[in-house]
Amino acid sequence: MVPHLVTALTGPINELEQRILDSMPAIERWFRLEWMEHTPPFYTSVDIRNAGFKLAPVDTNLFPGGWNNLTTQMLPLAVQAAQAAIEKICPEARNLLIIPENHTRNTFYLSNVRQLQRIFHMAGLNVRIGSINPEINTPTPITLPDGETLVLEPVVRTPRRLGLKDFDPCTILLNHDLSAGTPGILEDLHEQYLLPPLHAGWSVRRKSTHFQSYEEVTKRFGKLLGIDPWLINPMFNQCGEVNFAEGVGLECLRSNVDALLTKIRRKYKEYGITEKPFVVVKADNGTYGMGIMMVRDVAELDALNRKTRNKMNVIKDGQVVSDVIIQEGVLTHERINDAVAEPVVYMMDRYVVGGFYRVHAERGIDENLNAPGASFAPLAFEESAQLPQPGMRPGASAPNRFYMYGVIGRLAMLAASYELEATDPEAENFE
Amino acid sequence: MVPHLVTALTGPINELEQRILDSMPAIERWFRLEWMEHTPPFYTSVDIRNAGFKLAPVDTNLFPGGWNNLTTQMLPLAVQAAQAAIEKICPEARNLLIIPENHTRNTFYLSNVRQLQRIFHMAGLNVRIGSINPEINTPTPITLPDGETLVLEPVVRTPRRLGLKDFDPCTILLNHDLSAGTPGILEDLHEQYLLPPLHAGWSVRRKSTHFQSYEEVTKRFGKLLGIDPWLINPMFNQCGEVNFAEGVGLECLRSNVDALLTKIRRKYKEYGITEKPFVVVKADNGTYGMGIMMVRDVAELDALNRKTRNKMNVIKDGQVVSDVIIQEGVLTHERINDAVAEPVVYMMDRYVVGGFYRVHAERGIDENLNAPGASFAPLAFEESAQLPQPGMRPGASAPNRFYMYGVIGRLAMLAASYELEATDPEAENFE
Repeated sequence: MVPHLVTALTGPINELEQRILDSMPAIERWFRLEWMEHTPPFYTSVDIRNAGFKLAPVDTNLFPGGWNNLTTQMLPLAVQAAQAAIEKICPEARNLLIIPENHTRNTFYLSNVRQLQRIFHMAGLNVRIGSINPEINTPTPITLPDGETLVLEPVVRTPRRLGLKDFDPCTILLNHDLSAGTPGILEDLHEQYLLPPLHAGWSVRRKSTHFQSYEEVTKRFGKLLGIDPWLINPMFNQCGEVNFAEGVGLECLRSNVDALLTKIRRKYKEYGITEKPFVVVKADNGTYGMGIMMVRDVAELDALNRKTRNKMNVIKDGQVVSDVIIQEGVLTHERINDAVAEPVVYMMDRYVVGGFYRVHAERGIDENLNAPGASFAPLAFEESAQLPQPGMRPGASAPNRFYMYGVIGRLAMLAASYELEATDPEAENFE
Repeated sequence: MVPHLVTALTGPINELEQRILDSMPAIERWFRLEWMEHTPPFYTSVDIRNAGFKLAPVDTNLFPGGWNNLTTQMLPLAVQAAQAAIEKICPEARNLLIIPENHTRNTFYLSNVRQLQRIFHMAGLNVRIGSINPEINTPTPITLPDGETLVLEPVVRTPRRLGLKDFDPCTILLNHDLSAGTPGILEDLHEQYLLPPLHAGWSVRRKSTHFQSYEEVTKRFGKLLGIDPWLINPMFNQCGEVNFAEGVGLECLRSNVDALLTKIRRKYKEYGITEKPFVVVKADNGTYGMGIMMVRDVAELDALNRKTRNKMNVIKDGQVVSDVIIQEGVLTHERINDAVAEPVVYMMDRYVVGGFYRVHAERGIDENLNAPGASFAPLAFEESAQLPQPGMRPGASAPNRFYMYGVIGRLAMLAASYELEATDPEAENFE
């Protein structure tokens, strides 16, 4: 199924689509040259919002879940990309250890882990799942919704290596976002490849750092295409030392929200856009769709109720929010069966391998869809959905639309690559 | 559509399939290590015959045509593999020139060229078609059966480079098998990447050299899997200085056919196979399914009629045959809609990207199917056809069968890599 795109896609976004299609060889060459200088993250997913007049990433995940939402048609691409990735990192590898999140009851999440296991097994590796959850102290089989079984095994740490009983991996794949900080058991593994690196975890990452990198990427990309980078870049500000529970630092938030709304209004005016601007306030190290609120008017900040304050105060793994990013809100004008939808693009190594629509029937076009109640509509391949079809009218072709999403996804991935270089603790030692 | 496999697949071939599936991580690692030492051909197709008791490549094409027979579902994989290939060879490339065969009226062949153009365009290159046919002296649009247009343009040679008017490629992709020798216009292009290299052309290649390499590959692979390499290797002999028209050298042919039939009989006895052995006599540098005859009894050689002698004497581009290879005949026990079928596996760089069945309704299970009247049934992806499905009963699963074909195809590709290293004229200069 290729989802029907109901957006009335006229105006700037179609010009952008046309520009991107016409520039395909230049774009692909640009990415090839970038990847000669920079290492792509091992795997990445990017949430994208298509406002009709603007297309932008709103979240870049370096420990992507949701692989189970890709169709079986996409598996071959993911497997081929996994082979390319492994070949570069550890060609002599026999064994791969996946470290999942500590959830043991979320079978939806564990289906994602099972899918990753399948992909890397098909790429030619023995793959086992090593849990760092202290509750897992013996091999624990878990039955998944589709009837398959996943076995979580307790990791075994030796002074220099991490593995399982009778299983010594060359590469350790993290699917755990380290929100609560880096567990000691993962530190000082200098003999094994730990991917993504520990500093890709949310105890180190900041959304503002990522979007700063992304802004730089879009400036150069905008120059390549001859477009205003704003068409693909969500503007942002940031505030530190905010405490929602105690009402501390809200003045910084207030003035930055106000300033950003003014900047968005100016841009909307420039492009003749009549939508109401809004901003999204997010925990700068937040994930799982937690710690997010939409603000349409600065006055709303004066009237935050207790529930909202609590929601903004504590995010995944009980982390208290102190740094926030205030990001230009990007509407999503895509719908599937009347429900608001946003595309999510999946990449392995430098390759776009698939994607799906995150759909939420009870949310508006200016709301966060990464929330309980969301469902997933895979972007399938019946028409080679991720490949451009030259000659089609802009806006009329799902394949062309998805090529454009793949370009935006890769721009965000490139930004993450810059971000990881800038935050690499080992790189600092050489400076 | 995944073709229905009517073979009664019991006995050794199922053991082989099971062994291959069980050994998948070891096999993939083995290939990864091989590709660290050896360069895969740029693209390759391999004709495979599945006799039920034995599975073997019978032809390895380094200038594969027939890309138009792959389904659109396979395009993404081919594009991704093309991106990987280009990235290694010439990441800064903007332009790719394809040199096709000189056919200008075979629109079936030209559809294949169009498909290659599409694949490399989608991989991010400007792709144009440069003909070395002297009849093409102006850009010549040709309408293809599907209504698309292909433009053949005359190549422009400068002292050091080859291109088109206003088109200077970084890489030149040959889809011309050079049967008639290397055209001077392709020689001494040291500033550009010419792929595959000229010595991959049939004026240099010999099937016997390829199958000698393949035999070595299967010995090592057989050791890895603990199997008799004969299960995947067609035995062969060779004769030089044969002239079919003048009846010269037929004694060599006679004694080698006799010796090979005896060896096959011995193997059939060892495995309890009751089929009638046969050998295939082929021009050692033949292509296009030309210059091939089946021999079931050495007495047949004493009674070659004029038609057969003529057929064996002259092959593509009027080349006279003098060297022949006598190869163990491998039955094909696969059928699609009652017609005899053989799988063809397509690879780009080191990746299996697709395949199809060559089907011939008027040929027998022991005959050459690469002949006028053949049709093509794509191996499609509905069930991720090229990926193994662990846990399925051997023989019951098209995906598993196709994984096995992909392994055999890659073994033949690896043999071609060895072959190209051994015949590289530039490598000799360093010895």
